[in-house]
Amino acid sequence: MTGMAKGSFTLPGEAGYEDLTLRMAKKWGADVIRDSDGTVLSDDITKAGYGIYSTVCIIRDHNKWAAKHQDKLQQTFLVTQPEVAVDEILSIHLLDNYFKEQFRLNTSEEALRFWEVYDRTTKEKLPGGRWILEKEAGNVVIQEAVPFHTYTVSFLAYRIWEEISMYNHVTNHWEKEHLMPVDPRSEEAREYLYTWMDNWCREHPDTTVVRFTSMFYNFVWIWGDSEKNRSLFSDWGSYDFTVSPRALEDFEKEYGYGLCAEDFINQGKFHVTHMPPGKRQLDYMEFTNRFVAEFGKKLVDLVHSYGKQAYVFYDDSWIGVEPYSSLFPKFGFDGLIKCVFSGYEARLCAGADVPVHELRLHPYLFPVGLGGTPTFSEGGNPTLDAKKYWISIRRALVRQPAERIGLGGYLHLVEDHPDFCDYIEELADEFRKIKEMHEHGDVYNIPCRVAVLHSWGKLRSWTLSGHFHETYMHDLIHINEALSGLPVEVSFISFEDVKAGALEQADVVINAGRAGTAWSGGDAWKDEELVVKLQQWVYRGGVFLGVGEPSAAGGSQYYFRMAQVLGIDMDTGAKVCHGRWQYEIDKGLQNTLMPAKASVPQKDYLYLTDGRAKVLEEKNGLPVFTVNEFGKGKGIYLSGFKADNANTRMLLNILLYAKGTNSGQNYITDNADAECGYYPADKMLVVLNNSQDEVHTAVKTENGKKNFILKPYETQITHI
Amino acid sequence: MTGMAKGSFTLPGEAGYEDLTLRMAKKWGADVIRDSDGTVLSDDITKAGYGIYSTVCIIRDHNKWAAKHQDKLQQTFLVTQPEVAVDEILSIHLLDNYFKEQFRLNTSEEALRFWEVYDRTTKEKLPGGRWILEKEAGNVVIQEAVPFHTYTVSFLAYRIWEEISMYNHVTNHWEKEHLMPVDPRSEEAREYLYTWMDNWCREHPDTTVVRFTSMFYNFVWIWGDSEKNRSLFSDWGSYDFTVSPRALEDFEKEYGYGLCAEDFINQGKFHVTHMPPGKRQLDYMEFTNRFVAEFGKKLVDLVHSYGKQAYVFYDDSWIGVEPYSSLFPKFGFDGLIKCVFSGYEARLCAGADVPVHELRLHPYLFPVGLGGTPTFSEGGNPTLDAKKYWISIRRALVRQPAERIGLGGYLHLVEDHPDFCDYIEELADEFRKIKEMHEHGDVYNIPCRVAVLHSWGKLRSWTLSGHFHETYMHDLIHINEALSGLPVEVSFISFEDVKAGALEQADVVINAGRAGTAWSGGDAWKDEELVVKLQQWVYRGGVFLGVGEPSAAGGSQYYFRMAQVLGIDMDTGAKVCHGRWQYEIDKGLQNTLMPAKASVPQKDYLYLTDGRAKVLEEKNGLPVFTVNEFGKGKGIYLSGFKADNANTRMLLNILLYAKGTNSGQNYITDNADAECGYYPADKMLVVLNNSQDEVHTAVKTENGKKNFILKPYETQITHI
Repeated sequence: MTGMAKGSFTLPGEAGYEDLTLRMAKKWGADVIRDSDGTVLSDDITKAGYGIYSTVCIIRDHNKWAAKHQDKLQQTFLVTQPEVAVDEILSIHLLDNYFKEQFRLNTSEEALRFWEVYDRTTKEKLPGGRWILEKEAGNVVIQEAVPFHTYTVSFLAYRIWEEISMYNHVTNHWEKEHLMPVDPRSEEAREYLYTWMDNWCREHPDTTVVRFTSMFYNFVWIWGDSEKNRSLFSDWGSYDFTVSPRALEDFEKEYGYGLCAEDFINQGKFHVTHMPPGKRQLDYMEFTNRFVAEFGKKLVDLVHSYGKQAYVFYDDSWIGVEPYSSLFPKFGFDGLIKCVFSGYEARLCAGADVPVHELRLHPYLFPVGLGGTPTFSEGGNPTLDAKKYWISIRRALVRQPAERIGLGGYLHLVEDHPDFCDYIEELADEFRKIKEMHEHGDVYNIPCRVAVLHSWGKLRSWTLSGHFHETYMHDLIHINEALSGLPVEVSFISFEDVKAGALEQADVVINAGRAGTAWSGGDAWKDEELVVKLQQWVYRGGVFLGVGEPSAAGGSQYYFRMAQVLGIDMDTGAKVCHGRWQYEIDKGLQNTLMPAKASVPQKDYLYLTDGRAKVLEEKNGLPVFTVNEFGKGKGIYLSGFKADNANTRMLLNILLYAKGTNSGQNYITDNADAECGYYPADKMLVVLNNSQDEVHTAVKTENGKKNFILKPYETQITHI
Repeated sequence: MTGMAKGSFTLPGEAGYEDLTLRMAKKWGADVIRDSDGTVLSDDITKAGYGIYSTVCIIRDHNKWAAKHQDKLQQTFLVTQPEVAVDEILSIHLLDNYFKEQFRLNTSEEALRFWEVYDRTTKEKLPGGRWILEKEAGNVVIQEAVPFHTYTVSFLAYRIWEEISMYNHVTNHWEKEHLMPVDPRSEEAREYLYTWMDNWCREHPDTTVVRFTSMFYNFVWIWGDSEKNRSLFSDWGSYDFTVSPRALEDFEKEYGYGLCAEDFINQGKFHVTHMPPGKRQLDYMEFTNRFVAEFGKKLVDLVHSYGKQAYVFYDDSWIGVEPYSSLFPKFGFDGLIKCVFSGYEARLCAGADVPVHELRLHPYLFPVGLGGTPTFSEGGNPTLDAKKYWISIRRALVRQPAERIGLGGYLHLVEDHPDFCDYIEELADEFRKIKEMHEHGDVYNIPCRVAVLHSWGKLRSWTLSGHFHETYMHDLIHINEALSGLPVEVSFISFEDVKAGALEQADVVINAGRAGTAWSGGDAWKDEELVVKLQQWVYRGGVFLGVGEPSAAGGSQYYFRMAQVLGIDMDTGAKVCHGRWQYEIDKGLQNTLMPAKASVPQKDYLYLTDGRAKVLEEKNGLPVFTVNEFGKGKGIYLSGFKADNANTRMLLNILLYAKGTNSGQNYITDNADAECGYYPADKMLVVLNNSQDEVHTAVKTENGKKNFILKPYETQITHI
């Protein structure tokens, strides 16, 4: 341990607060100073010898050019609310439910050929002659509608307000020009943007790192007209905002088949990341991904040609970047920056194939945080916020290192919060110590390789679709969050991967999610080869951990296709008259696997298939946690999973049990509120208190049992 | 009111207790004395001038004949538990999971041709050459099994113990011969049974009424080998126990196509009444129904030829009787007897097309009742039990009369319960008074015609599949129970009925159930004509009340196909990224429709479609009770329904609201614990206390408001 090396820290500077900027840079050990959306850096800062990050959101802030090239704005497909005809004429106002400041109809000829009017009752597309567009009024009038049938109009709209700035604008009540998003799909736009970037690089000699925010296309974020339902559709992983007539034409040339509005609209459901993707959707994603990577690489090369580095921010207009795609290294980025609230986000960043991984920590230096709760304004407690976020991130960083951390926002807000400034100093030192130990050798893992199995596989490693607070209703994000800090090897595999032999590299397979979703897998489970492979693998010693509605797919004797391995199934209603096996709770196994305070949620309709499974927990008289022997392996079922300290320990216990190493395992704390990481190269042990209370814990090591008393949130690093 | 006329009461007599029998007959006003399973009547009783019921279970108690004709025993299809092959040879022991005393393999040549071995992984039936039957061992051995595929064997088995006597035997630890069920499907068996019945009639001159228990086939009740899962499959409405090679051959001749084992086994799910029936299933039911009616009529005619009446008991081996089928009147029964715990069962009986409707009340005169709880034995309170059952039955009888009531069991058990004897006297008088008022004219209904819409329609009016305690998990049985005593006209219609114009006779349509079930409707909702008809009907003024997962069927823009009428839908996961409408609780409407203590359950995934619906109640931040205007009509949604006094009143309030007559309606109590019925011909008002507490209530009548104070469970009958 070389002590208090500084660096690896990105500080948000602020013009007008030069002293503060330089003082905090020193205190926190910053080696780089950045600007933020809404701040600039003055010469006093940029000339102070620090590396300088400059944020560039390449597709906005070109309103002059955009105003002259309104057909080069980004677009999306929209669909009207289903309307029931009560007459033979049905007039539908197209933008009725949409936020008028975000959208403008694209009624150009090349766009209109993609418009579609559907009779949703018969599921038939209406021939062009059955409807007319009233351009001025923005209506579609359906002729000869069938009374009491339901109709929709799918149409293309320009997006006239770049969504992230729209959000910041509306939230902060800015009085500024609305920034329009430019679509680089046309050569003309790409040339313009390339030239602009070239000029920008020339005009910013002090910038050492261009921080792209991000590439070109935002995740889909469709706003509604009503304040009672402002966010009509928001999916952090969907590609809807990349579409345009030109993109569709290019796609058809490349793939030999054309996409239509319905490929995006999907009956008004769109294609949420949480549902299994179809072939056409995957083709379109790959097509877009390649386009973004190609033009992205040109811009990165340009940045490099000025001797600057190029980092990319993996949020906002990140669509087409996909850090776990094989295209990602082709961009040539020098670093990946991820805004993190959670451990799984830290792992997502840390695991990407790029030289530098940088975590943007929370809280941001903003007056208010998520959902409008105060952080640096009256009533906020930013230090406590920082601690809470850090204990989620820290445990992930103990497992896999990131190279850098940083903050964002308005630095002047920290002035009245000296405790916050002190805590960040402490946190940054902890970060650097953990990073340094990783540099000397890998952290010790128990010999357990966990493969998380879902429709997206590796492409969407760790994340589902965005932040924890956007995806908390899915069991899998809780599983991922728990796994992010556990001492096991974790990979993410798809159903195709299983068929291609991925099980050879797995000791435990986890499938967790609601029936029909991408996380459970939906129809993928109707593939007999998949089930046969998994059953064989379990029979020979593998462990299948199903959570929620794992492997659920209708049409078979069991709803869970892995029911014979799990020994438990869910009744869809067809077995309501079938007897239920009585059981006793296996108290011994319950005590082994469930720490105090661990909990498994109530779930309806569960039943034991053949009465052999051991039941560890029940709710409302139904088994919710079971273990079933299957050959040399096991099927383990949990009705749900919520990430907290006790349940995270329960998951670890399950993994230890799966490997038959429940007792006698070194380098596991004996208190669920604490975790540890052991670095054999340095013989260093990191012990973490993941709670707000003082914690006592012991850790068995190769040199005997060590005892620790940790203050709330504390990190202790010690040689053993 | 002619005062205390006696009669209309059937008493269970008991030899050895002649004095008691005649004393109770007088006290309770019995006009008929019956025997019970396990009791006989002596001459002192049969010659005392009462009508005499004798129970006849025609298909059992012929063990001598049955032993000689073991191929004439009743049968059923069974299926082995799905087994995963781990090798190329898989040996499956056929009766492994089944109660050995109930079943014997039918390995005859004509049966074997219906046996089926399935690869459940590929869903393929194995050709005969791939498996062999080891008759002695009772095994099927599959050759060349594919490792890790799942296999089952479907086979025919004789049923060697008639199930109702088996149940009584096992429950009461009898030491008696096991009675075998004879299948009247063969001419030989029918001739034997006909002759037996002829002799029986000749030998029982005192019997005035033959009470058939019931016809020939029991509802399906398959027992398991393990005491931890004794009742493997039990469905009060399923026809599995009618099957035999002969029946299948007859069916094929009549219908021109053959049925196979899988038509019954259905992947091991069988065909529970709670799931929508298929065409083949309905054909087979009709086929069996006709067979039962034909031979049943012969027996009834025979009974009539002896000057006796023939009643049928609608429980036990009732399969093929179907009181709401058009075949029912063809039996020529003089009466229908129904064992009743609940109001809906009273309505089921009272509404059948037969001259006499008789209710067998609870508690039975048995030491223990349902689930082994004491009634006439130590710790029981039969009087309280009787009161509780009676308040459920009574309110139904106020709406629709039955002609008779009665008890069953061992009369001597009442000797130590004088309060029970007094209460039954009181109850019988109440019954006769209510019956008499009906004879003078119909009870007053509010002008509201309710149609309950489900897959079975009229055929399964009022009931789902058996008693309340067997079906309590279904919302619809609670709805039916509530409706059974409400002052509205109720009919049961199918989806086909809707298309044929049934909505013309309805003011409110109720669809209540879990997605995919017969009660919600499943795929029936994929029929556009159905949805269009219903939408049109609501638009013109109808009210659609959806409960649970009404009209749910995947594949469309909404999961509830009536979502546009209801204004609420359920997200299957595809809309997890879609915004949710904010709402305010409509306190005014809530107060109008929800009485104190009314409750609507929590339900996940609900969302408002377009934000127009009024929300009356929410749980966990989701709307669970909504009202949506649609044209001149309304869609009303309840996430679930549990029958109790408050919720029953809530349902009545909804019906009044649907008709726009919430306030100012005469002949409605102002207290949810009380109900009333008004008989205009006699100007008599019956006021019921449906609770265990004293109740104060007022009723608005055409002669002003009347006030009542009712003792617990009390009935008051008054002229207004």
